Amino acid sequence: MDTAAIYHRAESEYAYLYKKGHYHIRIRTKLDDVETVELLSGDPYSHHSEKWYQNGKEMHKIASTNTHDYWMIDTHEPTKRMAYGFRIVGKDGVEVFHSDKGTFPFREYFLNKIKYYFRIPYIHEVDAFKAPEWAKKTIWYQIFPDRFANGDTSNDPEGVLPWGSKKNPERDDFYGGDLQGVLDNLDYLEELGINGIYFCPIFEAPSNHKYDTINYKEIDSSFGDKKLFKKLVKEAHKRGIRVMLDAVFNHVGIYSPQWVDVLENQENSKYKDWFYINSFPVDDMRGKSYEELTKIPRVNYDTFGFEARMPKLNTSNQEVQEYLLDIATYWIKEFDIDAWRLDVANEVDHYFWKRFFQEVTEIKEDIYILGEIWHSSQNWLNGDEFHAVMNYSMTDAIEEYFIDKLSSPSLLVSGINNQLMMYRQQTTEVMFNLLDSHDTARILTKAKGDKDSVKSALTFLYSQSGAPCMYYGTEIGLDGGDDPDCRKCMIWDEDKQDQDMLNFSKSLNRFRKKYQSILTHGEAEWHEVRDEEQFIGYKRKLGNEQLLFFFNQDKEDAFVSLLPRTAKRVFGLHDVELDEEVLLSHNGFTVYYYFDNEEERHERIKNKRKRAKERKVLFDAVQKK
Amino acid sequence: MDTAAIYHRAESEYAYLYKKGHYHIRIRTKLDDVETVELLSGDPYSHHSEKWYQNGKEMHKIASTNTHDYWMIDTHEPTKRMAYGFRIVGKDGVEVFHSDKGTFPFREYFLNKIKYYFRIPYIHEVDAFKAPEWAKKTIWYQIFPDRFANGDTSNDPEGVLPWGSKKNPERDDFYGGDLQGVLDNLDYLEELGINGIYFCPIFEAPSNHKYDTINYKEIDSSFGDKKLFKKLVKEAHKRGIRVMLDAVFNHVGIYSPQWVDVLENQENSKYKDWFYINSFPVDDMRGKSYEELTKIPRVNYDTFGFEARMPKLNTSNQEVQEYLLDIATYWIKEFDIDAWRLDVANEVDHYFWKRFFQEVTEIKEDIYILGEIWHSSQNWLNGDEFHAVMNYSMTDAIEEYFIDKLSSPSLLVSGINNQLMMYRQQTTEVMFNLLDSHDTARILTKAKGDKDSVKSALTFLYSQSGAPCMYYGTEIGLDGGDDPDCRKCMIWDEDKQDQDMLNFSKSLNRFRKKYQSILTHGEAEWHEVRDEEQFIGYKRKLGNEQLLFFFNQDKEDAFVSLLPRTAKRVFGLHDVELDEEVLLSHNGFTVYYYFDNEEERHERIKNKRKRAKERKVLFDAVQKK
Repeated sequence: MDTAAIYHRAESEYAYLYKKGHYHIRIRTKLDDVETVELLSGDPYSHHSEKWYQNGKEMHKIASTNTHDYWMIDTHEPTKRMAYGFRIVGKDGVEVFHSDKGTFPFREYFLNKIKYYFRIPYIHEVDAFKAPEWAKKTIWYQIFPDRFANGDTSNDPEGVLPWGSKKNPERDDFYGGDLQGVLDNLDYLEELGINGIYFCPIFEAPSNHKYDTINYKEIDSSFGDKKLFKKLVKEAHKRGIRVMLDAVFNHVGIYSPQWVDVLENQENSKYKDWFYINSFPVDDMRGKSYEELTKIPRVNYDTFGFEARMPKLNTSNQEVQEYLLDIATYWIKEFDIDAWRLDVANEVDHYFWKRFFQEVTEIKEDIYILGEIWHSSQNWLNGDEFHAVMNYSMTDAIEEYFIDKLSSPSLLVSGINNQLMMYRQQTTEVMFNLLDSHDTARILTKAKGDKDSVKSALTFLYSQSGAPCMYYGTEIGLDGGDDPDCRKCMIWDEDKQDQDMLNFSKSLNRFRKKYQSILTHGEAEWHEVRDEEQFIGYKRKLGNEQLLFFFNQDKEDAFVSLLPRTAKRVFGLHDVELDEEVLLSHNGFTVYYYFDNEEERHERIKNKRKRAKERKVLFDAVQKK
Repeated sequence: MDTAAIYHRAESEYAYLYKKGHYHIRIRTKLDDVETVELLSGDPYSHHSEKWYQNGKEMHKIASTNTHDYWMIDTHEPTKRMAYGFRIVGKDGVEVFHSDKGTFPFREYFLNKIKYYFRIPYIHEVDAFKAPEWAKKTIWYQIFPDRFANGDTSNDPEGVLPWGSKKNPERDDFYGGDLQGVLDNLDYLEELGINGIYFCPIFEAPSNHKYDTINYKEIDSSFGDKKLFKKLVKEAHKRGIRVMLDAVFNHVGIYSPQWVDVLENQENSKYKDWFYINSFPVDDMRGKSYEELTKIPRVNYDTFGFEARMPKLNTSNQEVQEYLLDIATYWIKEFDIDAWRLDVANEVDHYFWKRFFQEVTEIKEDIYILGEIWHSSQNWLNGDEFHAVMNYSMTDAIEEYFIDKLSSPSLLVSGINNQLMMYRQQTTEVMFNLLDSHDTARILTKAKGDKDSVKSALTFLYSQSGAPCMYYGTEIGLDGGDDPDCRKCMIWDEDKQDQDMLNFSKSLNRFRKKYQSILTHGEAEWHEVRDEEQFIGYKRKLGNEQLLFFFNQDKEDAFVSLLPRTAKRVFGLHDVELDEEVLLSHNGFTVYYYFDNEEERHERIKNKRKRAKERKVLFDAVQKK
């Protein structure tokens, strides 16, 4: 056995309170190397008297990646305190005790020393990761406001271009999309089946994308005003649609009053400590075009990336903190927004986000906080900063398989499981899952126009725990390469919309809503992962209910033959039922719902027996009288 | 190569800001499995343009345990942002890219994708772990007040026993030790060479140990009063001695006003949510002796361990938080204490400790916060809760080798390195290192009276990074088994004190102080770890300075022969210089100081060359005029 590959970390995604009475413990071992893992656990203060380490509790292999197996147990200790270690038996018969002090032979000498055990000192609910319930049930729809719909031409910005007039929009184009346009189309969105809108920034800013904020307390006038936004939130809420705004707190625009003050007063500016200025006089980049800026060597202040127009805010400055927290709470208190998406969240300090979390959850307990982080994000997802991150890592795994056709079923599963094991289960349940956004090429373009691949990828995305997001236009077949091409104008002419894609999207959303509970909480079991045939079969299982998914990415047809007789088709593409089997063509998939009657019968029999017994007790009691 | 054994975790003890301009990155591989590790790193936004991944930076093997090697690099990125991955070459020639998404073949396909890299999004000093500088320079002395010295018999508690009258003190004995006794002996402590006093609880409480607090805002009257305590702190500070108090915030005593109120008013008590009460009426344990209590089955409220006299506080209750934080700040503001030691710190929630950290550091920036945690404690030592924990894990490693004579030199090194790699370097530098306390048997008793073993173990402890602590009486040869036997009265009769041990202790403290900088910051190199000969040779190296340590635990004599010629003996036991060698008898050790002249010479030559060059530039310039 490869003992060097074993890994466990106390108080992390490897050991956490899932919900009251359910503590999850995971451990990692080398792939296909270990036969059984048992948890040895009990109250630390009764270790000597009860010798609980003599009775291991079996752990289950819940996920595998291309390098590791992961084992889990859902456990509980009545005293809320637990000491624990692991008994691991390798496929080679080697038996070890994995402990807080390392890995040792499985001997009494180590087992009876309490100091060798990992600890859950006391289970504090206050420290557990908790996410709003509604977030699990949400299907997001991302809107880039300048490009979704122009509902009011009177507020169009200067130099506005006719809607959709360019085949490929350019970096500094404006098309006049606005909040009225969104309001006008709420019925459309409701019918589409989404129930959450994620707005790219809507605050006053010079660019079309508005990530260079001037005034965080004003709606950009080309989008509308506060009154209109209030109405929009209200109307959305009426339809059960939640609203998420984009908070750009990492940096401001060079036309923000604070930065302008710095430029004008230099070292005497009261805002000079709001930024990371490396020398004076500070470089003035106002009035320079994108093209001019690309030719300028690095500026003398810290920026977002190398974007000279976006000076980075010093969020460790208390004044900056107060300024931003006031904004964060203002839009919740005054407009009742439901969520904040935090732009470039990873580059802002943890100290600030912890304050942010406290202040916003204090005024709206069930707010959803989403950080833009593209890499592994454990440290932001411990329950005191964010509820979720934009799950681009999952995007990558799905894309490499369904879109790029580069990886294999087993690598897809590995990628998905790697993500799953990186976070607590309750985090995964509210993760923000997406295939594309304003920051990436559109999925249809990445798939070189192959719609079936897109449908398969979307269905796979929707089949996972977490809240899926559809980028505006995906539902009607909008395409586009990398930014700014991925920000084309929405197509409203029905003749030009891909109606087949629209119908598919509606069905997909209906499917997700109907089976949301299984898709959020259900255990995943990958029972058919066949690399040579590009075939994947897996189920999501919750109590008696199961959803069975089968995807065929092979050029050859495939047959699904392992379906229970009473399973019922609920969704699919290029799938044909043939007697006992289902035929899946290339890029096809099928989804079956199955209610496990056998278990139900078991339950029924058990209940019958119980009732019979109760009747007998009653009968005996009557007899005795 | 065993790729499954590789482990790295972003933003943890594996990747952290040590101090401005010094970011430490570590990675773990299987023991003796890997030839080289290189860090591939650069600004994430210039990954494509600069292709910095083509130039790896060599990492160094800094520690090994019995299962793993650890590699490190001290690095920096001028933009304060870094993407990074690892090139790892196995001893078998296999070459891999270890990334945020797992381990892959070392191929351009993976290397040129920025999303495969780990990230340091932006280096925020506000998020870094910082500890007070003085904590590194402290030698602590732990005092159990009832047993250190009775300076004022007028405040002796009822039923006080004559000082040291029992060979083995019993659980409920009182001996009348007090603060006046400490004040009277400050000169003694100063002469001993310690510069920090860690007081076991001194607040009003019925027991002799005072871990069952009644009133956190009063000094127990048998110890003295506030005026006297203020004087004591002042006098200690005059002598450069810091003062640490023990905060028992996990639980209170059953005679505390809050608990009494619960007992008297039951469900109507305003304090009922201050505790974890499982049912009413609450069991009343007042007036019961220790012996009676041991016979009682579990009480119906949560307690510390199964101690019915210590009801656990509900620290997630805001009122409890305010109550305890008021106490925490009161003793700093009013009495200028320097540190808090937090009793049963692991069983109190993180949320509370984060508030605690903020409030106490706000009023005293350089306060030292020490948590009582016996197991691995990464989650409390991220910089926003504690500065250190009581390093019992190190105690175990030292004890198993020097005292129990059970392990081996290599297992000792493994244990020490395991600890070192568990925390950030700046944490290790202020760790609270100890061999015994009021909660364990005394080291002399554990060593079955073998003083030389104790001296070796103490010296080894003092040779490590972190602040060592001496338990009162260790310096004069006090012994004692498990609690309450480890709490014997201090011996003040010089004839009964072990004067040899006292002299040794003074020398050891002098040695520690003189070489504190090397012992705190110096790199450790274990150059002779010979299991069969029970011989250990290692150095601590800082710049040009080195301390060379050699320990012989074998029954046979050993010879130290690898000493540089100009090295100078600075400390030792049973060590005799013989011409070119040093003879070490059983349980002996020797310490040499060495100033590496070769490096100095190098430096001197370099400087000479530089000056010559400067003179030449000047000369040339003059010529040109």
